[in-house]
Amino acid sequence: MAARELDPQERLDWLRLARTETVGPVTFYALLRRFGSARAALEALPRLSRPVTAMTLRDAETELAGLDRLGAQLVCWGEPDYPAALSAVEDAPPVLTVLGNPALLQVPMVAVVGARNASANGRRIASELAHGLGDAGVVVVSGMARGIDAAAHLGALDNGTVAVVAGRADIVYPPENQNLYDALVERGAVVAELPLGTEPQARHFPRRNRIISGMARGVVVVEAAAKSGSLITARFALEQGREVFAVPGSPLDPRSRGCNDLLRNGATLTETAADILTQLGPFLQSEMPPRAALSVQKKTHLPLLQSLSNPRPILPAEPQIPEDATLELLIEKLSPTPVAVDELVRQCHLLAASIATLLLELELAGRIERHPGNLVSLR
Amino acid sequence: MAARELDPQERLDWLRLARTETVGPVTFYALLRRFGSARAALEALPRLSRPVTAMTLRDAETELAGLDRLGAQLVCWGEPDYPAALSAVEDAPPVLTVLGNPALLQVPMVAVVGARNASANGRRIASELAHGLGDAGVVVVSGMARGIDAAAHLGALDNGTVAVVAGRADIVYPPENQNLYDALVERGAVVAELPLGTEPQARHFPRRNRIISGMARGVVVVEAAAKSGSLITARFALEQGREVFAVPGSPLDPRSRGCNDLLRNGATLTETAADILTQLGPFLQSEMPPRAALSVQKKTHLPLLQSLSNPRPILPAEPQIPEDATLELLIEKLSPTPVAVDELVRQCHLLAASIATLLLELELAGRIERHPGNLVSLR
Repeated sequence: MAARELDPQERLDWLRLARTETVGPVTFYALLRRFGSARAALEALPRLSRPVTAMTLRDAETELAGLDRLGAQLVCWGEPDYPAALSAVEDAPPVLTVLGNPALLQVPMVAVVGARNASANGRRIASELAHGLGDAGVVVVSGMARGIDAAAHLGALDNGTVAVVAGRADIVYPPENQNLYDALVERGAVVAELPLGTEPQARHFPRRNRIISGMARGVVVVEAAAKSGSLITARFALEQGREVFAVPGSPLDPRSRGCNDLLRNGATLTETAADILTQLGPFLQSEMPPRAALSVQKKTHLPLLQSLSNPRPILPAEPQIPEDATLELLIEKLSPTPVAVDELVRQCHLLAASIATLLLELELAGRIERHPGNLVSLR
Repeated sequence: MAARELDPQERLDWLRLARTETVGPVTFYALLRRFGSARAALEALPRLSRPVTAMTLRDAETELAGLDRLGAQLVCWGEPDYPAALSAVEDAPPVLTVLGNPALLQVPMVAVVGARNASANGRRIASELAHGLGDAGVVVVSGMARGIDAAAHLGALDNGTVAVVAGRADIVYPPENQNLYDALVERGAVVAELPLGTEPQARHFPRRNRIISGMARGVVVVEAAAKSGSLITARFALEQGREVFAVPGSPLDPRSRGCNDLLRNGATLTETAADILTQLGPFLQSEMPPRAALSVQKKTHLPLLQSLSNPRPILPAEPQIPEDATLELLIEKLSPTPVAVDELVRQCHLLAASIATLLLELELAGRIERHPGNLVSLR
């Protein structure tokens, strides 16, 4: 990908827009498309029919200074250090905090995840799989949880491993993983979507899992109870078009229930790293093709803007304030159950561009939520 | 199937022809087709260009008397007690020795097989699966070996279970299974292809496995090392169009290697009896469709003859002795590697009926061996 680093001012703009309340990743990219740049979007936010207050410049500068003191860096979508596979995901984080060696994020990755209350055998399998993947030049990504995650990181430490954490990059959670955390910062990398100072909360974990699967070419699940978090990671992986691998186990072991279910539903049975490497061969040798709508155009001075544009012409920078009646019509069609935007276009008899503008308004007003696959729901 | 019992004379003829050296199951049915009845085939054998000596009437009577003393019975292909699913298999044994309750052979069966050196967990799983299958009205068939087989029989004893043994029906092998054997004779059934007095030998076991899979609608493998006998049963099952099920296990347990390989190759992952019942639902409710070429015609007085006839007209009962030159031409085309009979027809520029007669000659002379799928090889 013909990526380039943002200049310091652009980086501040991106950080401010990304950290603005009600601006999730999908909204972030919609704003970039709508207004042409993070700067233009920041300028437009206060003028919307339901004005939105962005992160202040001062808070953004404080965050960057804090990262600098910690030896961490901010990596923005489209920059050279941004993980290649993740950049092709629809709701990829616009900014990532990276501690450790960001060069690892450019190596093809495989996620190894699983139960926190793993068995000794499960940990051994995770460690051996991770080591075998590392020997083949693959970076192992996981979530730094206890059990399988920790074993996978340890097994891959010599070859390169990346932890995606649920809270801030500078927190050691669980505390027993202090040594692992130190080793990851020293020899691997720790990646976080959320700003320094954010304590990990339950609602952060699914999002963390989605970043893990997004960074990886494939997700290997080693021991997982039925309905456990690792299965959510596997579901994300399928949504993102990643290969799912599962290690089989005895029907008498509840920690194998989730893996066996995955196998029943088509996951690749995995006993050794060779099972993964054989299946992923083509993906590991070539880079992931960039998502068409996001591919960078070399000709322009606004590569990111162009890269984020959809096939429709860029709308005028000055937003047209929609009629409240039209907004209400749209709200009527929405419910807490996610619905496809295309379906809304059909049902409302409005142009797709008008619906997009209306949805952006509702999004920024915190009325609706975006979901992958161009779905929206009422909050 | 409109089956009928053979009369005592026919039964003796079938036994004599089936027990004649160089007459395997495929040859047996070919002789029936060629000569119209077991009696006619017995009469023709001494008149062939390479005469064959059949089992004597006296030896056949001795075998039947022995069975009678033991409380066992001879069940011939096409008779009401013959296992329905097995009768659709190309090389089904023409005669079976049955000890215990032959009515069990009419109930839809599932085979549960696996390692002799099974783990305690593996035995528990086999027993629970077998019990669950029995509760659903399925008869469990296995090989009465130690380990998984024995556990499966024990788990199914209350509901009905059938053992297929490799040697004679009256041998207890392994000796530690004496109690199980007694229970099977009392409450289940023991089935053997070979006559009383035959000691089990290594070469009998694959054939025994093929009968197990042939009797079953599906084969469940619980613990099996790589390249073990249970995998041969699974391969037979696939050849016979049966469903294959495997219980997953840890990659660290060598006894799970075979099962995991089966799963990798498309076997249905099995944790509980429900996994099997769901998959086999339609097969267990309806009888297996009889093999077209073997389906019984109600109109005739010779149902077995008709049932065994192929679409070509029955050849005259008096065999035409083939020219030695033609025989040699055919032998030239054969090798120890099995070849399709259709291919021989093409290569020899002879009528299919002529090739069939020549092959029958060679078979009875012990020069060639028949294989399922209409293949033949030079001995």
